[in-house]
Amino acid sequence: MRMFRNDYSEGAAPEVLQALVKTNDEQWPGYTEEGDEHCDHARELIRQAVGRDDVDVEFCIGGTSANLIGVTGMLRDWEGVICTQDAHINVHETGAIAACGRTILPTRDADGFLSPDEAERVYAEHMSTGRHMTRPKAVYITNATEFGGVWTRTKFDAICDWAKGHDLRVFVDGARMASALTSPQSDLSLKHIARRASAFYLGGTKNGLLFGEAMVIADPELRDSFPYLVKERGGLMAKGRLLGVQFEAAFTPGPDGEAPYWRLARHANECALRLRDGMLGLGYRTYLPSSTNQQFFVVSPKDEAAFAQAVGSETFAVLPSGERVIRFVCSWATRQDDVDQLLEFAASRRQG
Amino acid sequence: MRMFRNDYSEGAAPEVLQALVKTNDEQWPGYTEEGDEHCDHARELIRQAVGRDDVDVEFCIGGTSANLIGVTGMLRDWEGVICTQDAHINVHETGAIAACGRTILPTRDADGFLSPDEAERVYAEHMSTGRHMTRPKAVYITNATEFGGVWTRTKFDAICDWAKGHDLRVFVDGARMASALTSPQSDLSLKHIARRASAFYLGGTKNGLLFGEAMVIADPELRDSFPYLVKERGGLMAKGRLLGVQFEAAFTPGPDGEAPYWRLARHANECALRLRDGMLGLGYRTYLPSSTNQQFFVVSPKDEAAFAQAVGSETFAVLPSGERVIRFVCSWATRQDDVDQLLEFAASRRQG
Amino acid sequence: MRMFRNDYSEGAAPEVLQALVKTNDEQWPGYTEEGDEHCDHARELIRQAVGRDDVDVEFCIGGTSANLIGVTGMLRDWEGVICTQDAHINVHETGAIAACGRTILPTRDADGFLSPDEAERVYAEHMSTGRHMTRPKAVYITNATEFGGVWTRTKFDAICDWAKGHDLRVFVDGARMASALTSPQSDLSLKHIARRASAFYLGGTKNGLLFGEAMVIADPELRDSFPYLVKERGGLMAKGRLLGVQFEAAFTPGPDGEAPYWRLARHANECALRLRDGMLGLGYRTYLPSSTNQQFFVVSPKDEAAFAQAVGSETFAVLPSGERVIRFVCSWATRQDDVDQLLEFAASRRQG
Amino acid sequence: MRMFRNDYSEGAAPEVLQALVKTNDEQWPGYTEEGDEHCDHARELIRQAVGRDDVDVEFCIGGTSANLIGVTGMLRDWEGVICTQDAHINVHETGAIAACGRTILPTRDADGFLSPDEAERVYAEHMSTGRHMTRPKAVYITNATEFGGVWTRTKFDAICDWAKGHDLRVFVDGARMASALTSPQSDLSLKHIARRASAFYLGGTKNGLLFGEAMVIADPELRDSFPYLVKERGGLMAKGRLLGVQFEAAFTPGPDGEAPYWRLARHANECALRLRDGMLGLGYRTYLPSSTNQQFFVVSPKDEAAFAQAVGSETFAVLPSGERVIRFVCSWATRQDDVDQLLEFAASRRQG
Repeated sequence: MRMFRNDYSEGAAPEVLQALVKTNDEQWPGYTEEGDEHCDHARELIRQAVGRDDVDVEFCIGGTSANLIGVTGMLRDWEGVICTQDAHINVHETGAIAACGRTILPTRDADGFLSPDEAERVYAEHMSTGRHMTRPKAVYITNATEFGGVWTRTKFDAICDWAKGHDLRVFVDGARMASALTSPQSDLSLKHIARRASAFYLGGTKNGLLFGEAMVIADPELRDSFPYLVKERGGLMAKGRLLGVQFEAAFTPGPDGEAPYWRLARHANECALRLRDGMLGLGYRTYLPSSTNQQFFVVSPKDEAAFAQAVGSETFAVLPSGERVIRFVCSWATRQDDVDQLLEFAASRRQG
Repeated sequence: MRMFRNDYSEGAAPEVLQALVKTNDEQWPGYTEEGDEHCDHARELIRQAVGRDDVDVEFCIGGTSANLIGVTGMLRDWEGVICTQDAHINVHETGAIAACGRTILPTRDADGFLSPDEAERVYAEHMSTGRHMTRPKAVYITNATEFGGVWTRTKFDAICDWAKGHDLRVFVDGARMASALTSPQSDLSLKHIARRASAFYLGGTKNGLLFGEAMVIADPELRDSFPYLVKERGGLMAKGRLLGVQFEAAFTPGPDGEAPYWRLARHANECALRLRDGMLGLGYRTYLPSSTNQQFFVVSPKDEAAFAQAVGSETFAVLPSGERVIRFVCSWATRQDDVDQLLEFAASRRQG
Repeated sequence: MRMFRNDYSEGAAPEVLQALVKTNDEQWPGYTEEGDEHCDHARELIRQAVGRDDVDVEFCIGGTSANLIGVTGMLRDWEGVICTQDAHINVHETGAIAACGRTILPTRDADGFLSPDEAERVYAEHMSTGRHMTRPKAVYITNATEFGGVWTRTKFDAICDWAKGHDLRVFVDGARMASALTSPQSDLSLKHIARRASAFYLGGTKNGLLFGEAMVIADPELRDSFPYLVKERGGLMAKGRLLGVQFEAAFTPGPDGEAPYWRLARHANECALRLRDGMLGLGYRTYLPSSTNQQFFVVSPKDEAAFAQAVGSETFAVLPSGERVIRFVCSWATRQDDVDQLLEFAASRRQG
Repeated sequence: MRMFRNDYSEGAAPEVLQALVKTNDEQWPGYTEEGDEHCDHARELIRQAVGRDDVDVEFCIGGTSANLIGVTGMLRDWEGVICTQDAHINVHETGAIAACGRTILPTRDADGFLSPDEAERVYAEHMSTGRHMTRPKAVYITNATEFGGVWTRTKFDAICDWAKGHDLRVFVDGARMASALTSPQSDLSLKHIARRASAFYLGGTKNGLLFGEAMVIADPELRDSFPYLVKERGGLMAKGRLLGVQFEAAFTPGPDGEAPYWRLARHANECALRLRDGMLGLGYRTYLPSSTNQQFFVVSPKDEAAFAQAVGSETFAVLPSGERVIRFVCSWATRQDDVDQLLEFAASRRQG
């Protein structure tokens, strides 16, 4: 059976792979420099997609690299970033932000969404003793969240308003931005994000590229930092062309007028929703509502083991009840057929 | 005309690209983890190539990332690495080592080779005042050197002996290791390096891969560090398979029994030597002797401009005489034809 | 009225000040180097006090400096230190540990004592995903705790046993070690701490010195690190003699056979207990039990303001009830008279 | 005989020590906070001395701490500081700047003075490849220099003009600022420095205080950084009063209208010039001209040993000739008598 372990199990989507093959023998300057026409074009396409021609676009090689560059670029040495306790930077990046000398200030938000209330609590606590505590200077949010949640425009504006009111920057980890924005539940547009965030990235690794994230730097104060930080932190590719070629392919509209970047994500979401609805119909229970390509279910330890063996699902939490939260992930490579096979297997577990 | 700007102007060598295409739909665990059979196999092939089954192999995404991980892994906070003044880590990596909190201790060696005499001078100076100066703990060398030079076994053993005698570790930047080891002037084997160096890497980016460097950790005291550092410093790829697939292709022997990794480098060297000999025949002068894929020539400012325009050559130094040191680089993608065209152009400059 | 704000409101205890005056014109080598007889002697006295002649003693200039040096010295780049959520390093040191590139891993312990259960929970979570999370390598505890609590031998052995069982180092912040060990509730000896901790310090700043903490490095693996880190982190005094002279004075037994270091702390504790018992007698309520020189009370916002104005007490928390946790601190400089005046004032608040 | 090893061999000058004794029992808020009247007053006196009431004054505990805080506060992560090769931050601070993640960019200036020509060379080289090299953003100079040299107004303005023209900040290490400014050769005033430097400090440790340096932050863009950095880097004293009391004493004019800070330095200089002239008269040779409290002489290895034994002189360099450069240092504590005794000893070496 096809694995549902994650959205980076396969290589690249056909459009992207073909573009790499097709351009393989071309010669281009290194390091995503001006004059690499694929990078130049990709930057142009991304500026169009975000609706601003005054933003900078820097290419990063992966999520952790993009996060540590993005967050470091927003903070002076003694400043910190507010995020939820489950934020990827707080739990799954081996202290990469601290390794750059900055402090993470986690809230108690448990659903993946950073709330103004919790942000305010952490902010107030840290401002209460002057220089004896790290000074908050940015918030970090993820769209979609770690649990597949989708930021609505209302929620997004609320945290942006709060941040603006406290002179904090807003960083949006967009490792799964395409899945979030193409979710049926999303009323938030990329253009709106580009109007309000200080910086954010459009994830490629988890949406059909071999690798790569496109960082959009919207706040002019930050433009100076990012190019240098990308190099200093070891994130600048010699063959920068690879990032240009891939993002160019992803953002070039197809015959139907839609760019693969959005089509691939929409496809992954559709598979995931078919899976979710099927599972619910079989009596399984979701952990948190998700309308993106990650789906979380609460299952028994026996089911946990069975699904892990069958489709590589991973465990995210052990609940006080002893039940497990497991995750299924769909991608551009998932087929409806694969979903149906998994549902069949899930049905068989119910009958057993 | 074909550019001779650098060895990362094109995509991947055919064998490598085909392997990526062929394996694109396979599903594998992320992050180069055990169970990713391509990574496992590539590690095995590399262990065979270096002649030791007790080394660890970690994949890095590029040279700066590999250098900062490698050097940081060898040093405690207050320790430093001795290298030549022109070492890549000292001049072209935007302070990446300092950004990890470590100090670079440059010697005055001007030919790209770190000499025991200069290393001793720097070492003695830094040990003379106890804790008031950074303590040297490693040496960093590059094979081939920044100027295309090839470490002979005698030279290599001399610096390794010196380092061992002072309890310093040896790190070999192998961004162009394949070119060095396949050079007609090299009497140094990979197996010998693996017996004496603490850690080194086999460069892929500049030898036919899309990207990637394979770090070989020979000193058992360092094994603990590298896996964590790769992740913490943002250098761990989600689709780790890409590194496995590429290095597997590069190190799998072809019909003639030779792995592409060596064949591609030998080809680049042959083109470079044809170019060098042709240029010498035309009366051009080399800057430093090189038998690898980079060739440096001393030319007039007018020639500098003409070659830059024609084949993208870069300038490495302005000599006190006003002459320029320019560089031509051959790669797996260079054809004899390309070399001959460049020589023709060079000849026309002489006649003009 | 005398302030009860903290134990660093005044200068130095008479014995210490006199020693500084008496030795002022002597000439000594700098930087606490061998040959500075006061430093040498102070080290010797401290080795005697901790009952081991095989430990190193390094002098630090203050608590934050000692903590960042001590914790950095115990951790490699990707490693973290487990401590309680209220630990000084986690909340009141402006991200100093993160500024050195290391990660703090706070537990949910709320009473100032790090429990093996919570440590185990944090440890297990961080070891569950291999290199994707910071690896715990040390525990940080404080004696007395942030809330004035005293580590008993049973509690201390429990966390040391747990740490040893997981190959973690133990760091004891001893900013108020003297107060803890002279508390009537303490059954823990300095010699026992020196047998079990990897490193700890004997706080001087808060116990009658102008400044200074004496770091005892018990684990031989750590000895290499500390001297260099003290200098590299800006914590090495040119006039190192000042630390030698002060600790020499503090640890030289007086006519009664007791060293001022212990006598001064015992005096501060006696004042604090007189204050605590008086307050309890007046109907005030303590927040957490303390038998050291810091006493925490739960009071109304009005009392909070009145005490702050009268004796400089600081607020540590606002409880859900709206009540405040305030702190009174006694020191070597506090007199019984001062305590009685404060109690009189407290009594007047009750009658009002 | 009295040692001439350095200017931090003794404790504090009488005025300073008396002020500490006199204020010892007073109670003041911690951490140099507003409300500590000695700190407030000292800041006021320093603002008067530098002729600007719009500067911030932060107290540091020593030179290395002040340098790492000052330089870090001026640089973003990828930026570097230009200084001479012998600059204290480059050679005698154990990589403290690199430990904060910043890069030092040394010139080849060999006389202790940073020249615009050399600064320009280093600057141009680092700006030549865009983000591949550290970006220079500050210059670091020392007055007096490492070799006792005095910056004239012409020299100082030249480097400030150069820095301003390149948008670089100017940091002046003033560990021996008082000695420099009271030197008969100095035509530079503190007020002029305060008009042109971005930040500088007035050294106390080497001019009669127990310890302490007063950092003057003149560039408003930097004001935000310093208070936080002092704490984060472990340089904030709990008993901040000590810094206030000492600098207050040092900058309060005496009966003759002159503040001890200047009088003590002038005295040290006078002793040093008497020593220099005496030595020259005896046929000894100075290494570099100095009119401050440090004097460097070129002597034979035998004299080197004899002086080291007699007065603790330290060796600064071994010349190609085999001769040694040794240093004598005078301080507030040196008496003319001490100088004459040393000269007598020096004379006896000549006759031997």
